[in-house]
Amino acid sequence: MTQETRIAHTGKPRVLIIGGGFGGIELAKALRHTEVQVVLVDRENYHTFQPLLYQVATAGVEADSIIHPFRKIYKGQENFYFRLAEVESIDTGNRMVETTIGLIEYDYLVLATGATSNFFGDKVMEEKAISMKSLDDALILRNTMLQNFEKALQVADEEQKNSLMDYVIVGGGPTGVELAGALSELRKHVFPNDYKELNFRDMDIHLIQSGPHLLKGMSGEASREALRFLEDFGVKVWLNRRVKSYDGYTVSLDTGETLVTRTLIWAAGVAGAPVRGIRPESILPGSRLLVDRYNRVSGYENVFAIGDLAAMVTEENPQGHPMLAQAAIQQGRLLGRNIGHLLAGTPLEPFTYNDKGSMATVGRNRAVADLKLGKKEIKTQGFMAWLIWMFIHLVSVIGFRNKLVVTMNWLWSYFTYDTGNRFIVGQKQENTPVEDTISEKAVV
Amino acid sequence: MTQETRIAHTGKPRVLIIGGGFGGIELAKALRHTEVQVVLVDRENYHTFQPLLYQVATAGVEADSIIHPFRKIYKGQENFYFRLAEVESIDTGNRMVETTIGLIEYDYLVLATGATSNFFGDKVMEEKAISMKSLDDALILRNTMLQNFEKALQVADEEQKNSLMDYVIVGGGPTGVELAGALSELRKHVFPNDYKELNFRDMDIHLIQSGPHLLKGMSGEASREALRFLEDFGVKVWLNRRVKSYDGYTVSLDTGETLVTRTLIWAAGVAGAPVRGIRPESILPGSRLLVDRYNRVSGYENVFAIGDLAAMVTEENPQGHPMLAQAAIQQGRLLGRNIGHLLAGTPLEPFTYNDKGSMATVGRNRAVADLKLGKKEIKTQGFMAWLIWMFIHLVSVIGFRNKLVVTMNWLWSYFTYDTGNRFIVGQKQENTPVEDTISEKAVV
Repeated sequence: MTQETRIAHTGKPRVLIIGGGFGGIELAKALRHTEVQVVLVDRENYHTFQPLLYQVATAGVEADSIIHPFRKIYKGQENFYFRLAEVESIDTGNRMVETTIGLIEYDYLVLATGATSNFFGDKVMEEKAISMKSLDDALILRNTMLQNFEKALQVADEEQKNSLMDYVIVGGGPTGVELAGALSELRKHVFPNDYKELNFRDMDIHLIQSGPHLLKGMSGEASREALRFLEDFGVKVWLNRRVKSYDGYTVSLDTGETLVTRTLIWAAGVAGAPVRGIRPESILPGSRLLVDRYNRVSGYENVFAIGDLAAMVTEENPQGHPMLAQAAIQQGRLLGRNIGHLLAGTPLEPFTYNDKGSMATVGRNRAVADLKLGKKEIKTQGFMAWLIWMFIHLVSVIGFRNKLVVTMNWLWSYFTYDTGNRFIVGQKQENTPVEDTISEKAVV
Repeated sequence: MTQETRIAHTGKPRVLIIGGGFGGIELAKALRHTEVQVVLVDRENYHTFQPLLYQVATAGVEADSIIHPFRKIYKGQENFYFRLAEVESIDTGNRMVETTIGLIEYDYLVLATGATSNFFGDKVMEEKAISMKSLDDALILRNTMLQNFEKALQVADEEQKNSLMDYVIVGGGPTGVELAGALSELRKHVFPNDYKELNFRDMDIHLIQSGPHLLKGMSGEASREALRFLEDFGVKVWLNRRVKSYDGYTVSLDTGETLVTRTLIWAAGVAGAPVRGIRPESILPGSRLLVDRYNRVSGYENVFAIGDLAAMVTEENPQGHPMLAQAAIQQGRLLGRNIGHLLAGTPLEPFTYNDKGSMATVGRNRAVADLKLGKKEIKTQGFMAWLIWMFIHLVSVIGFRNKLVVTMNWLWSYFTYDTGNRFIVGQKQENTPVEDTISEKAVV
């Protein structure tokens, strides 16, 4: 019975991993041959390939093709156990985690809950804006976009109509740049065919960046070219501006300027996903957890944090490592080895980040890439960068089947200038009141 | 402005089609070159290929691959207009339809709203059962199925666990037979790998059929073989039984027998989707609308009904035509021509149903088919029928892209004995209370 209804204690030390993002799944894999019981807890039953969320949101690829069920990833890994649950709090004293399905004991706890959008306490904006962190977010954006065009057909008032057709993207990082680029391609190639009654010269795409450059952290060439590509595509890029407030209709910038939109996409600040039960001394501003070179949360023996949630503060990285998949993956792999060392009583290996560079795509044949191969730095923009971007993302998508589907989608839309998945299915954005803008029911 | 915010009157007679199922989309296509304005109203922005809903529900194909956006289907058809709306009532006197987006005028009205599950007034069962009519239904079943296995892991009590793992399918028509077969294949090839902590000998699949034969309306050979195939697959088929009640947990049969399940799938009776505003004299038992040989609703000049909603009662068809895609498609095409005749003042062509036969698949290499080629009847069961079933469904799926994806999915699962899309995404079944069955939170 117990065997079938609880997580059986296998007699081996239990490594409890909270969160199946890039870091968590790499760690679970790395522990494949270690004499431990691996228990992964996530609130979804699938891993999400976040870098392509924006393509789901813009109807470029099927939602199903960028996610992979955990139980399938670890098919055949004997020491792996999965539980679908949310963590409520941690009791490090009793080595237990309280979850929505009960208390789970652990010998080693690894927090890999990643980051969430940071609205700096602005509850209204948090409610009205659409984030781009989860598959639900992406589907909400896709459905909102398509619903708003359908609604725009029924609206007489020009400003109301624009509010349904215009987009404001906050944050000039990769996600913001990629979303803006993808939206502008839809505006050019797809929407005019779908909505011949609408005039897409009326559709504005605004990208708002707090700093003077896009793609902060990338090279000057990269951010300059990204800006040029976006402006070629007709995206209105607003540099050196911050969003002060958004009420679901009017966007106010700190410069006093205002924009009107029903769809504000928040691709700006992120913060560590908070975990209850960790001592405050270990929590840094931005809710990241202070960890040592072995990803051990400061003040604990057997509690670790990896990925976006972890801040490994060192001289070379006073802010911790960048919140990128690469850092999470590398930390997950090393921690796997180090847990082996802990069990064997052999010395731990300190983490060193192997920065492979970063990249962003703006649209067909247009991307920017700063690549680091060992000591060598390669900066490229345009077609070559775009090919490299596609290749790297394809090989990174989990599952051969997903690689196939994504490839098919990309080839398809490249040659047909069309995207397949313009459906209003599933999650809808509840909190953008649009009905009130529909002019009184009219005879048509 | 008007042009962009309302359905512009093009000066041509307006044919208003309510519902984009098989009949509705064929009619809209058939009117391609007719001097009319075609307005299609549907509550979704896509056409659903209902015959493969059960494969979405059983994680066999992506949801996106069996639906197709209306605006894409009619890309380039100048006289086509789409509106995303639900119909509230019809005012035949003023030739208007009241919808959620306002009143829509028409010159010719075509009702093609299809059929809905018929629970014969049992509100509790209607609330607790899962239908298989829409994409949302299919996703709800998929998500419920996967969630219930996750929950079963946490349940100690045997009966409670079985209630989460067992399935009761009501209705031995194609949908019920195909669902039962697909579930038994998942039980054999897929679930045991996913949930190694569960014992799938505990998973029962019950199929309940009111009559003495499965696949009523098909040949004796077909129903006998379908029964044999299902029993080979370990499906428990209950003939000559009706479901008296279902409270979300206990299923009571008219024979006094009871079954326990959290998941009752309703693939039994259907009724025409009711439309408010049609005179009662034209509504038959089962809410189908009485139409003449030209699909004109009795008592109206310019109101038509096609497909499942229409009952063309004749000597040869005292019950009207079978509620099958073929009947809807043929009626839609003919009505397209007949509307042309009406405009030209030329005589209308009466409808004659070209019965091409019917088929159902039970699982890999196992299907039954009664085909009619003109006067010739071909009855086949097993591998050949299965190939024919796949071929016919593939060519019928709308969109080359969808054909590709479906083919890929089928080849993939045929050779890997695996299915891809075991995700809990989107619509969830709200009304199956399972939490209450989870044994008190326990330390695990």
